Amino acid sequence: MRVLGIDPGVATIGFGVVEADRANARLIQYGVITTPAGLPLSHRLWQISQDMSQLLEQFQPEEAAVEELFFSKNITTGIAVAHGRGVLLLELERAGVPVFEYTPMQVKQAVAGYGGADKRQVMLMTQRLLKMKAIPRPDDAADALAIAICHSRSATSLLNMERKFDPKRYDTR
Amino acid sequence: MRVLGIDPGVATIGFGVVEADRANARLIQYGVITTPAGLPLSHRLWQISQDMSQLLEQFQPEEAAVEELFFSKNITTGIAVAHGRGVLLLELERAGVPVFEYTPMQVKQAVAGYGGADKRQVMLMTQRLLKMKAIPRPDDAADALAIAICHSRSATSLLNMERKFDPKRYDTR
Repeated sequence: MRVLGIDPGVATIGFGVVEADRANARLIQYGVITTPAGLPLSHRLWQISQDMSQLLEQFQPEEAAVEELFFSKNITTGIAVAHGRGVLLLELERAGVPVFEYTPMQVKQAVAGYGGADKRQVMLMTQRLLKMKAIPRPDDAADALAIAICHSRSATSLLNMERKFDPKRYDTR
Repeated sequence: MRVLGIDPGVATIGFGVVEADRANARLIQYGVITTPAGLPLSHRLWQISQDMSQLLEQFQPEEAAVEELFFSKNITTGIAVAHGRGVLLLELERAGVPVFEYTPMQVKQAVAGYGGADKRQVMLMTQRLLKMKAIPRPDDAADALAIAICHSRSATSLLNMERKFDPKRYDTR
């Protein structure tokens, strides 16, 4: 199963594509979509939609995993990120790719084995699981790969049962 | 000039279309786009994009005014609204409609004459300025009409100079 992991944003959106089976996740591609800070938000959102649409066309993922948003820190940044996340979810829906959402803690749990793992531990495990020579860069791309691994493991294991999966979810269009 | 005012959201998006000249704003249409709470967010966003695209096709606004988001109250709701607002801005950009953003205080100032006006005062002024027989319903539609009036007045008066207008804004595509 081909999984696209997404670390949402407006300035930088991380993406990671893996091919997952019951035992392993194999790296296909990773990177970032970026938009320049100087442009109006509506135009940046349009660029994001174009780039995401092209990514979906190129990699044809069967499922997508997108990190949920939590804002204890900066609400203004959080609102901008949520604008971008809305556009990303829209493009996934438009392409008919089922969307699964994970909290940062679920990602840490699935990749590093415990929800309290720090960022570096998660990155090292991501590198190891995907048999990469170095920790993937930039951070947003590494995060996206971790999210993709999280979904791969959840979707092919008993963890699956813990997800709030609604079978009616994709019968609504 | 035909102006589309938008009160952003996910469950309910208010819209109001007015035809504005130097002296007056004339009502063209108003209403709401709604999405059912039971559907997944990505599907609701897709519905919003479809409905907004149809509205733009039908009313051909020359400019759009969208309320800015402020969250002192409910951050979870605010994040959902920001997802919807991202999709609305995207569709405006896609249709080539210039987007102007106003704070709630700017709307109150422009419509009711002072930034501390209460909701009902703004609605009564909206009704009066658009020569309507009653206060427009629902509230989201009334808010959207007020935002459209705010832009009409700003765009055809000296208030114009106070907007953060960037002439390069629409040369970027």
